[in-house]
Amino acid sequence: MARVIVDVMLKPEILDAQGQAIARALPRLGFSGVSAVRQGKRFEVELEGPADDAAIAEVRKMAETLLANTVIEDFTVTVES
Amino acid sequence: MARVIVDVMLKPEILDAQGQAIARALPRLGFSGVSAVRQGKRFEVELEGPADDAAIAEVRKMAETLLANTVIEDFTVTVES
Repeated sequence: MARVIVDVMLKPEILDAQGQAIARALPRLGFSGVSAVRQGKRFEVELEGPADDAAIAEVRKMAETLLANTVIEDFTVTVES
Repeated sequence: MARVIVDVMLKPEILDAQGQAIARALPRLGFSGVSAVRQGKRFEVELEGPADDAAIAEVRKMAETLLANTVIEDFTVTVES
């Protein structure tokens, strides 16, 4: 059993209204020193078998077709050690 | 300028309906070999200064009070290298 992480974030050129709202709220709440915040999604995918090349390729296909909207989002796939 | 990542996931004992929906959809969509999926949030926090101990402590406080609902969610703070 292995765990693969898929991180999905809006592409840099897409306005991230949620992240901007957080960044704007911070000074009001007493936090300083933050120049920007972006919000995205994190998926923890538990595999039945090992995280070999074939399994990673399968998760990548899954991310492309199901977890991310690749028109507006980028994703990264990493194996959790 | 440094980037700090805050990952927020539901606590393991909390039912993750979104993750379960994804896990159930996978076989229908032709993906096999996945035993479970959990969905959470990822925040990329851009700091104005370096990610020193004080800044990390500040981001941790931010996560606790603003980004995560610690009744039902766990969070981790990592510095992106």
